[in-house]
Amino acid sequence: VVNFTSDNCHGVSGPILDAIARANAGSAASYGDDAATAGLASRFAALFEREVAVYPVITGSAANALALSTLVPPHGAILCHEASHILTDECGAVEMFTHGARLVGLPGREGKLWPDAVEAALARFEKGSVHHAQPAALGITNASEMGTVYRPHEIAALSKVAKANGLALHMDGARFANALAALGCSASELTWRAGIDALSFGATKNGAMAAEAVVFFDPHAARDFEYRRKKAGHLISKMRFVSAQLEAYLEGGLWLDNARIANAQAAKLGRALQGRLAFPVEANEVFARLPVATAARLREAGARFYDWTPPKDGDVLVRLVTSFATRDADVARFVEIAGTE
Amino acid sequence: VVNFTSDNCHGVSGPILDAIARANAGSAASYGDDAATAGLASRFAALFEREVAVYPVITGSAANALALSTLVPPHGAILCHEASHILTDECGAVEMFTHGARLVGLPGREGKLWPDAVEAALARFEKGSVHHAQPAALGITNASEMGTVYRPHEIAALSKVAKANGLALHMDGARFANALAALGCSASELTWRAGIDALSFGATKNGAMAAEAVVFFDPHAARDFEYRRKKAGHLISKMRFVSAQLEAYLEGGLWLDNARIANAQAAKLGRALQGRLAFPVEANEVFARLPVATAARLREAGARFYDWTPPKDGDVLVRLVTSFATRDADVARFVEIAGTE
Amino acid sequence: VVNFTSDNCHGVSGPILDAIARANAGSAASYGDDAATAGLASRFAALFEREVAVYPVITGSAANALALSTLVPPHGAILCHEASHILTDECGAVEMFTHGARLVGLPGREGKLWPDAVEAALARFEKGSVHHAQPAALGITNASEMGTVYRPHEIAALSKVAKANGLALHMDGARFANALAALGCSASELTWRAGIDALSFGATKNGAMAAEAVVFFDPHAARDFEYRRKKAGHLISKMRFVSAQLEAYLEGGLWLDNARIANAQAAKLGRALQGRLAFPVEANEVFARLPVATAARLREAGARFYDWTPPKDGDVLVRLVTSFATRDADVARFVEIAGTE
Amino acid sequence: VVNFTSDNCHGVSGPILDAIARANAGSAASYGDDAATAGLASRFAALFEREVAVYPVITGSAANALALSTLVPPHGAILCHEASHILTDECGAVEMFTHGARLVGLPGREGKLWPDAVEAALARFEKGSVHHAQPAALGITNASEMGTVYRPHEIAALSKVAKANGLALHMDGARFANALAALGCSASELTWRAGIDALSFGATKNGAMAAEAVVFFDPHAARDFEYRRKKAGHLISKMRFVSAQLEAYLEGGLWLDNARIANAQAAKLGRALQGRLAFPVEANEVFARLPVATAARLREAGARFYDWTPPKDGDVLVRLVTSFATRDADVARFVEIAGTE
Repeated sequence: VVNFTSDNCHGVSGPILDAIARANAGSAASYGDDAATAGLASRFAALFEREVAVYPVITGSAANALALSTLVPPHGAILCHEASHILTDECGAVEMFTHGARLVGLPGREGKLWPDAVEAALARFEKGSVHHAQPAALGITNASEMGTVYRPHEIAALSKVAKANGLALHMDGARFANALAALGCSASELTWRAGIDALSFGATKNGAMAAEAVVFFDPHAARDFEYRRKKAGHLISKMRFVSAQLEAYLEGGLWLDNARIANAQAAKLGRALQGRLAFPVEANEVFARLPVATAARLREAGARFYDWTPPKDGDVLVRLVTSFATRDADVARFVEIAGTE
Repeated sequence: VVNFTSDNCHGVSGPILDAIARANAGSAASYGDDAATAGLASRFAALFEREVAVYPVITGSAANALALSTLVPPHGAILCHEASHILTDECGAVEMFTHGARLVGLPGREGKLWPDAVEAALARFEKGSVHHAQPAALGITNASEMGTVYRPHEIAALSKVAKANGLALHMDGARFANALAALGCSASELTWRAGIDALSFGATKNGAMAAEAVVFFDPHAARDFEYRRKKAGHLISKMRFVSAQLEAYLEGGLWLDNARIANAQAAKLGRALQGRLAFPVEANEVFARLPVATAARLREAGARFYDWTPPKDGDVLVRLVTSFATRDADVARFVEIAGTE
Repeated sequence: VVNFTSDNCHGVSGPILDAIARANAGSAASYGDDAATAGLASRFAALFEREVAVYPVITGSAANALALSTLVPPHGAILCHEASHILTDECGAVEMFTHGARLVGLPGREGKLWPDAVEAALARFEKGSVHHAQPAALGITNASEMGTVYRPHEIAALSKVAKANGLALHMDGARFANALAALGCSASELTWRAGIDALSFGATKNGAMAAEAVVFFDPHAARDFEYRRKKAGHLISKMRFVSAQLEAYLEGGLWLDNARIANAQAAKLGRALQGRLAFPVEANEVFARLPVATAARLREAGARFYDWTPPKDGDVLVRLVTSFATRDADVARFVEIAGTE
Repeated sequence: VVNFTSDNCHGVSGPILDAIARANAGSAASYGDDAATAGLASRFAALFEREVAVYPVITGSAANALALSTLVPPHGAILCHEASHILTDECGAVEMFTHGARLVGLPGREGKLWPDAVEAALARFEKGSVHHAQPAALGITNASEMGTVYRPHEIAALSKVAKANGLALHMDGARFANALAALGCSASELTWRAGIDALSFGATKNGAMAAEAVVFFDPHAARDFEYRRKKAGHLISKMRFVSAQLEAYLEGGLWLDNARIANAQAAKLGRALQGRLAFPVEANEVFARLPVATAARLREAGARFYDWTPPKDGDVLVRLVTSFATRDADVARFVEIAGTE
């Protein structure tokens, strides 16, 4: 089976599975009071070149909703791309954890937010009026839901608008490794140096079993995050097994190696499907318009992927997601069938 | 180190770790649409001898709060023992997930609720008055927080009161295996046959890495549980690894074997500390009053455990929790030191 | 001062103020257990020609948010016009009271929702997927925020779509009297006979001091409304004074007389501003494009009104709201100045 | 009918009704942007001898729940007397508005909290542990639910404990006027000079129609209160009518005159029922043990009052609440019948 439905359909990267097994030795304090969890502070500080507050959780939805509920009051509004995961795929988790804040979806080319759209949206809010939700955060996703990547200067431009308007800037980094691998810059350049306040640092989609980390670049901004995590049932008792995943994920650059594999496979697909692409292929997602018959033939041959929109004029827009586990043969087989059109 | 602080300080049972590794083969649909998760329905149906609705989650707090929020409206009250985990150790998770329901702690000997106390509490509520939270559920913990065990007939007596007053009956089964192993009855006898409506079926404390299951004995009572789980960020993407833990936990009776080991070690401690016990030792927890000097000596020797209440009159009430990983030598060493008084 | 900013800038209709004074005689049971409140059931039953559940509250925001929270689960989505009050002017009250449901704003000509837009929006939801909020209600406003009026057959067409998709149909009737007076049909024709499930029946904007009523046309659909009202702090202790307002509002058709005055004054303004109107003038609101200089001159002369959008090309779109208290001289004076262009 | 069920069974004090009628002249900005509401700041500043932030609402439940939600985070605990209104009579409003904070009821003689009980309760919390709700506020009621009154030095003693533990101190002043009238001290002495941070200043029970004011003695502590009030549907559109009530309530000392009448009538009842009293009669509530037959005879004669607890040993504890509208003849008649035993 050639499975391009999502990167989370794939399993656990070998070194991470090994680390889980190693973490099983002996007893350890529970609820995050173990040595592995304590060690995350320095690992993430090294990675981001500054002191940070870092908290492991086990889903991206929890990471996003808990981070945003820490940054945004109940009467706040969170501006985000209209295709963003927090708006379209989390069943209102952000609304619940913030106690009623509102997500405002904005259009933006290539699946990204742009300063002009954000400024236009902000102009529509009546500042300081209790009748209206008040803009409190800007949420971006990198790599984006369309597989495109924000550059540091693009983030900095958004940050400038955000800061000028008193908004916190959150990045959903479910595919942060893919973005970073694509750009080749440092983790700090892609985050706090560009103005990011808080990051949902994803590992699950890129080889972990269930491990994400919420990172606040100003540790004081984390405020009551630990209480929020516990109150939401997201404080894992045997936390050492989550922290061990994050350790192994970072160790020796495994995370970037994994991301580079995924990105490279997507790039191959992108090259083969040139002319059919809806978005530039920059990370590990490919959006391509295929003839309906081709899509059907691929599925008959065992390929799995999502139709992104309903068929139209004989074509269908499909999403292909690659991962660290995508094999050359998978891509070759897919291209062979798709390419016969 | 002899670690009696909690059963969740211990790692993962061997067969469960193996199962996690095996689950890593190939790709699988995410978010619970995999074969292992689908198979849980029949496994739990067999275990409980009836069709049930079963949903994996990864913490006991989530299991309890999500289950109760499904059973109880925002204006509801949940009666529980004053020492119960949902009341004392979950930072108000139930209050948040129910959108403001209230936990009402009741006293009860041996850490258990008894029908008379429940009836007395219910009599204090003005039924049907909008000014007061309305009793909507009864929550019990089995094995209890004091290491004691509810018998089926005790649960049935509580259920009779609950049903007569329109209350749902929830069981926090973080240590359900220990209770079942202690009693030797069937899982159905200890749950729905005695009147339990919903169970938080714990596995983490008894050898899983992070795996619990919420079980509704009337599948219709599950109502919107799946939406609640997702909205709370508790739907794991690589769910197969959670379901694989539950599979291996049940496979060949591992769960009961593990629980029997834990219970037997607690029983040994209990026998050695006879005369100092605050509660009968029925499952895997021992509450004993030790001379303060003895407790200090034990800690110097490397033993770890919690003081349950502040020292008084030269004694301190300590809690000792055993697990599947507790070794004979741990118990022997502890007893040797403690017994020299 | 000629005040067209809003109908709620005007005071209390004479007969309602008299009724408040009369209600002051003697003592009465509090929290709605008084005779006046009890009598609302038959008054509203007579008005709507069927048994209904009716609950007084004191703001329109409370009426809307409490009604919708009764109809919609936390994972629900509420489709409404993009200009609707619940979406734009209530600071996220609906999101809070529903515990995180989502409002989805849709475009629609003349400030109204139309079946095709609703169907198109519904098609974008993935039904039964826990990842996405599930459409649970349709919310319309009559008279609309643009001063236009839904006809019974238009509501019936929306109801058909709603019912076919399992959505409840709620009507924000902050200006229900104005809509009814404009159409001349019966209250039942404009509500449940056309498919409305629940109505926020407004009185405040049309002459009451602070009185609205939430009406459920199927009394069973009210479910736990009374608990929600109390839990939100919206159960008034001296309720007789709210119910007395509603009594006097309905008595002898005062409400429709008041609405007819307001509508007639708006119609006069509309005729005078013919050619400048952004929407048909059907109830008591006029949206007109005035030269910026004219708007300034009107304000200098003491007129008050809101600019609805920022000035553009020398014109500004203003909103003029009339009420039962708008005098002929107010309109004449306004027209005199505005008409000199 | 002699009505002692509650002070909110009585109507509106004459001067307040007159003020409502006067407020009806002309148009005024809505949602609190009117002159009467603006004037409250200086009136309350004069009353309390310092700058304060003051916000009108229309129920005591809203005042309490909104004030506490401003002071307490979702993971907070609020310590209060076990008989306090916020705990027993508001259907969990505080839990909802705080998004899941917990009320912890403490015993206390004469219906009041005492420093030793508060300190003992605080000692049971594990400070800084995410597993447990963290004490964040102390809530007292003055006059208390038992009709007793906190003296300034008693409040100061509680404040000392509160401040030492980082707790905000809130006073439910539904019967603040009765307490103040009883003590004869200044409003500042009974509030901020004794350490109160926020006050629910009640007027409804003492002669207003529906008017309370939330007062923050440090205006900065009000933070996002205005957004919370709006989001909860508690911002009244024709606010001038609420503010006019508060103006008239304070004007010429009406509020204290009203309270003195109520207190004096209660004192007469208390003297007549000497020997039967459960609590000292200090404000406008009398708790007396009457023979069951006497209570029945009083009801036959038209008296209305609540049984506070079920009958026992031939006696029943009844609550008698007096108000500004209680007449000498009411008291005389009641005493005449009750006194024949």
